[in-house]
Amino acid sequence: MSAATIKAGLFDRVALIGVGLIGSSLARVLRRDSPQTQIVACARRAETLAAVRRLDLADETTDDPAAAVAGADLVVLATPLSAYAEIGRQIAPALREGAILTDVGSVKGAVIRDLAPLLPPRIHFVPGHPVAGTEHSGPEAGFADLFLDRWCILTPPRGTAPEAVAKITALWEGAGMRVVTMEAEHHDRVMAVTSHLPHLIAYTIVGTATELGQDLQSEVVLYSAGGFRDFTRIAASDPVMWRDIFLENREAVLELLQRFSEDLTALQRAIRRGDGETLHTWFTRTRAIRRSIIEAKQA
Amino acid sequence: MSAATIKAGLFDRVALIGVGLIGSSLARVLRRDSPQTQIVACARRAETLAAVRRLDLADETTDDPAAAVAGADLVVLATPLSAYAEIGRQIAPALREGAILTDVGSVKGAVIRDLAPLLPPRIHFVPGHPVAGTEHSGPEAGFADLFLDRWCILTPPRGTAPEAVAKITALWEGAGMRVVTMEAEHHDRVMAVTSHLPHLIAYTIVGTATELGQDLQSEVVLYSAGGFRDFTRIAASDPVMWRDIFLENREAVLELLQRFSEDLTALQRAIRRGDGETLHTWFTRTRAIRRSIIEAKQA
Repeated sequence: MSAATIKAGLFDRVALIGVGLIGSSLARVLRRDSPQTQIVACARRAETLAAVRRLDLADETTDDPAAAVAGADLVVLATPLSAYAEIGRQIAPALREGAILTDVGSVKGAVIRDLAPLLPPRIHFVPGHPVAGTEHSGPEAGFADLFLDRWCILTPPRGTAPEAVAKITALWEGAGMRVVTMEAEHHDRVMAVTSHLPHLIAYTIVGTATELGQDLQSEVVLYSAGGFRDFTRIAASDPVMWRDIFLENREAVLELLQRFSEDLTALQRAIRRGDGETLHTWFTRTRAIRRSIIEAKQA
Repeated sequence: MSAATIKAGLFDRVALIGVGLIGSSLARVLRRDSPQTQIVACARRAETLAAVRRLDLADETTDDPAAAVAGADLVVLATPLSAYAEIGRQIAPALREGAILTDVGSVKGAVIRDLAPLLPPRIHFVPGHPVAGTEHSGPEAGFADLFLDRWCILTPPRGTAPEAVAKITALWEGAGMRVVTMEAEHHDRVMAVTSHLPHLIAYTIVGTATELGQDLQSEVVLYSAGGFRDFTRIAASDPVMWRDIFLENREAVLELLQRFSEDLTALQRAIRRGDGETLHTWFTRTRAIRRSIIEAKQA
């Protein structure tokens, strides 16, 4: 996998709308593998665009999404989800006929519902989700190896041109990813378990700890290695991105949260009653899933 | 810190009651730094003792705690907490006068309450908690560097001989740890936040995921890199050890769990109502505590 490269000339002109961790990492891969590909970077904030120029991640920079997409054969939407609808309205009239539009958002059902109706015909919309990231954000945080050996999930709506799906598959495979295709709603249920609920829980517990008063809090920092530290890393993720994820994947997250709360209540009850057997049975079962993850080489 | 060593001859004869991750790691440090120290390893299971002999972690092995402590100037209790009381009764008559008894348990208040009354006078009891570990258990999982640059918390009851505390401090500092002393009850409150609640939450969420049905479960394994994986690592920790921790630190854990549940309910409500501002404010606040941890060099 580490020998993967994006085929030079797969796209002639790529518009990156949003140049955070994911967008800037993709720019780095394109720079590395396909230097002849023109990259136009679009961001709202002047500092972001200045960083893009300093890092030489694009040939052109603009804060106007419509200008960015003009002439592009690939448009990659890599902003927080809440910006999609407005950007969709702005770029729709400017998209080149036959262009492929993809995105990197962590929720797919709501995105397709909001974005698809805005797009003109003869545009190929291939929603995608490269499942990769760190707790850092912004163009400086990106790196070309971010995608290496990670999964990318595409959720093309029924009727999407297979050639467009194939080109987006080639793009992410070139970046080192393993690409799969599934239904958008299924994607959202899987991600609610593997990513969205864990983030919500981590945000909650770290928030709970910050309210314990100053004395205890400084000790929590010192002794964080006992488990808490892993949660703080997750809970340092980008607040806007995650606010949007929870709002857009609301139903799947709330349904899962309900199950989680029931399970937590059961364990709480076992602790209160001194029911060691229930705890032991539960804790033994969870070890098995760790083993599956190690066997699947995801650990 | 990495130049730390246990002073040769600090103890002549060490009895390790329990030779899991912590006990076997301490044995490795003693072997490395003080080869003239005699080590007696005591475990209930024959396979554990066979592993200890195979790994050359002790000079003598036995399944009889009373035999193990005979003549030892240091006794280290490193079993699950639920074994303490019975072992205390067994070793009390066999302890050498002036011997130091310490332990490595993750809960201190209940331990002192149960164990101290069983001990004869002229025994120095210095409860301790080396805050170090991995998700692996057993004598094969230990390694001498486990303690390096980690904290060790001692909770000597009022009136403990300062020389005994000094020797246990020297032991763990020699293993590379930073040693601090605090009240047992305070220790238990701090650990409830930094370690016990995070483990309970991780166990819960991984358990919730295992009940989602076979189809979804295999995908959860594949896409675990999005956050879930960190929880599975924590939830793979030793089930007996953790059952005992929750039962022994019941009050602090339940009190904290109550706060956590209230906070989770508040975030759940914000998601249901589409209240992005509450989510954003919460998620921004949690980033700050991550920065404190990085500044405190605990990340």
